[in-house]
Amino acid sequence: MNSPAVDPARLAAAAAELIANTRDLAALGWTPATSSNFSLRLDGQTAAITVSGRDKGRLVPEDIMVVDFQGRAVGSDKRPSAETVLHTQLYARLPEVNCVLHTHSLAQTLASKLYAGAGHIRFEEYELIKAFRGQETHEAVLDVPVLANNQHIPTLAAQVDCLLDKKEIWGYLIEGHGLYAWGRDMAEARRHLDAFEFLINCELEMRKLHR
Amino acid sequence: MNSPAVDPARLAAAAAELIANTRDLAALGWTPATSSNFSLRLDGQTAAITVSGRDKGRLVPEDIMVVDFQGRAVGSDKRPSAETVLHTQLYARLPEVNCVLHTHSLAQTLASKLYAGAGHIRFEEYELIKAFRGQETHEAVLDVPVLANNQHIPTLAAQVDCLLDKKEIWGYLIEGHGLYAWGRDMAEARRHLDAFEFLINCELEMRKLHR
Amino acid sequence: MNSPAVDPARLAAAAAELIANTRDLAALGWTPATSSNFSLRLDGQTAAITVSGRDKGRLVPEDIMVVDFQGRAVGSDKRPSAETVLHTQLYARLPEVNCVLHTHSLAQTLASKLYAGAGHIRFEEYELIKAFRGQETHEAVLDVPVLANNQHIPTLAAQVDCLLDKKEIWGYLIEGHGLYAWGRDMAEARRHLDAFEFLINCELEMRKLHR
Amino acid sequence: MNSPAVDPARLAAAAAELIANTRDLAALGWTPATSSNFSLRLDGQTAAITVSGRDKGRLVPEDIMVVDFQGRAVGSDKRPSAETVLHTQLYARLPEVNCVLHTHSLAQTLASKLYAGAGHIRFEEYELIKAFRGQETHEAVLDVPVLANNQHIPTLAAQVDCLLDKKEIWGYLIEGHGLYAWGRDMAEARRHLDAFEFLINCELEMRKLHR
Repeated sequence: MNSPAVDPARLAAAAAELIANTRDLAALGWTPATSSNFSLRLDGQTAAITVSGRDKGRLVPEDIMVVDFQGRAVGSDKRPSAETVLHTQLYARLPEVNCVLHTHSLAQTLASKLYAGAGHIRFEEYELIKAFRGQETHEAVLDVPVLANNQHIPTLAAQVDCLLDKKEIWGYLIEGHGLYAWGRDMAEARRHLDAFEFLINCELEMRKLHR
Repeated sequence: MNSPAVDPARLAAAAAELIANTRDLAALGWTPATSSNFSLRLDGQTAAITVSGRDKGRLVPEDIMVVDFQGRAVGSDKRPSAETVLHTQLYARLPEVNCVLHTHSLAQTLASKLYAGAGHIRFEEYELIKAFRGQETHEAVLDVPVLANNQHIPTLAAQVDCLLDKKEIWGYLIEGHGLYAWGRDMAEARRHLDAFEFLINCELEMRKLHR
Repeated sequence: MNSPAVDPARLAAAAAELIANTRDLAALGWTPATSSNFSLRLDGQTAAITVSGRDKGRLVPEDIMVVDFQGRAVGSDKRPSAETVLHTQLYARLPEVNCVLHTHSLAQTLASKLYAGAGHIRFEEYELIKAFRGQETHEAVLDVPVLANNQHIPTLAAQVDCLLDKKEIWGYLIEGHGLYAWGRDMAEARRHLDAFEFLINCELEMRKLHR
Repeated sequence: MNSPAVDPARLAAAAAELIANTRDLAALGWTPATSSNFSLRLDGQTAAITVSGRDKGRLVPEDIMVVDFQGRAVGSDKRPSAETVLHTQLYARLPEVNCVLHTHSLAQTLASKLYAGAGHIRFEEYELIKAFRGQETHEAVLDVPVLANNQHIPTLAAQVDCLLDKKEIWGYLIEGHGLYAWGRDMAEARRHLDAFEFLINCELEMRKLHR
């Protein structure tokens, strides 16, 4: 099989953008113990993604690799993370998606465990719901899917495909594991990530306060 | 209709002050997902205000626009945020007010939801009550109004006018939406904002602790 | 009455030390809304203290003034804070004390309200008790006094004098108002302050967790 | 008795690495009130360790000393901390361990008190369990030992030896006192420390949320 060609300038720009944004997210404590990974689409066949197992606050260009949409390394001997396919399935299916962020904050982990049984966490009557693309009013009800954890990534990927068949979503939680959020570019993906984190924290705090 | 004239030096100074202070507030996490907006009075007819939808930690001078006190853009094609009138109604009515800060912290959002039913949140026996202009003793009781959320901003503005008819206040909450705080200058508005945030956190924590 | 003479070099050094340490404490969020004040002994008759009402994250040398041990301004028209005497009574009475820190953190405020009825908050079986001068073992029981708030500062000062008659202490809380902590120098006062803040947070969290 | 020889270049490199990493951990608030200590193995007989009683955010090379594996100072008059032997027993026994980190975060202290009765804290169904060397799946159950506090350090050391006889562990808690975590190098020890802190916080929050 021939590997897709990669534009070096485009890769360098994507690596720089990933490194700078990953450092911000690490500083917030959302990437504990070298967890989490982050990607940007390069073109119709490839994406740049962080190599797993690195301290996300100190990435260098060598910590960014290229993968195709089957999650295989392109032009590199590095082994992509098993979770790579959860990024690339979004690029393969959704042409408008150009950035995927997977984080692992305390609140995301807690919510993923508390709401895995229900299968979703519901946000209602929050102004910040308008932060998600396509939401024009705070009166909407937003249900964020929560998948049961599973070491078999293709099973998770198949579950995500089912979710995407049903309606437009901008993220989901995996039990005990954190959040996937995405957008048309890094700024939108970060705005979605920020809104998910805020709303999840609201719901957790309301559980503590509302008794 | 003739637009009011704007002094460019005054606008540049206001923009610089807004950008620096907004960056501080973003670093505290009080402006999640590009929410929140901030303004400074320029004169008797206009104010400088942050353009909506920008990352509040990275504003540049182009992200500040001028509006009149009906909330209309002055000398710009940018569309002001729908909430602009909640800033400008204060400038139009209260000549001593020169700065309005609207933030969206976790604690503000939680309190706005928990106390919307009561219509206010009460602070009692806190030394920090003296941080508000006109409060000379911690023995005062301070009731901060909480408005029900409403996508129809003129309705919110009319409710705020009723509140201002009754007594002097330095801020209010909107359900699910955050806080408006103001003062005679940026320093006083930030002192009021800081005191609101602190006292709101106190009340929320006391609910968790006092059972 | 003749004012005591002040050594300008000593005052400049004390001001620099106060400004740097106050900035650290402001960054921790322990001085909300221009609250809190900090002092260093200059000699047997005077101390340098922060002027009240300033943003504690941005002090300049002009924000430090000299007071005598009755809490009166020395060589300045500035009005000392009413709470100045709670600093100077310690310098007047305890020759080994050279630094007093008064902060206003969320945890200090909460604990001061929750434990004012009991009159003290008790710390037991914490290794960090050894951070206080004179404590050699974590097996000690440490009772930190909590005074009822009172706008009449001489009454508070008289209560503190009674506490000091009974035993050696390195700090106390005032209801709704925060903490006073002190030490033989800035490093020791900050170590005591840090330990109080940590232990207070432990007790508050244990209340939430231990049911 | 002859002291072991120390390679000055190796010591200087270890001191620099300890200082930089200790500053990071202090900034996280995990070393309150000059608590905590950190070490790196130098060779088969000695380790470099932080001197006790210093502000961990501001260490200088003179705050790093050399000890042998009985916890005695090498080439220095400084008195090693009583807890030194809890570091060196690991170097003496486990040849692959080259870094030991002892911290004192709020969450570690709380968990050490809440779970001392049970003797361990259990982590189950967390993706982050895979952050520990040798854990390949999140399906594992991880029990972290919690020792009763004891001012007699040799007793604690003997208890740790018993734990190490039973199975491979990468850390333990001491009641009221904090966490010991280690690894093959600084990066691995910090990854383990980070994972312990995250998982402990998860368990504490779940106690508050899950009722």
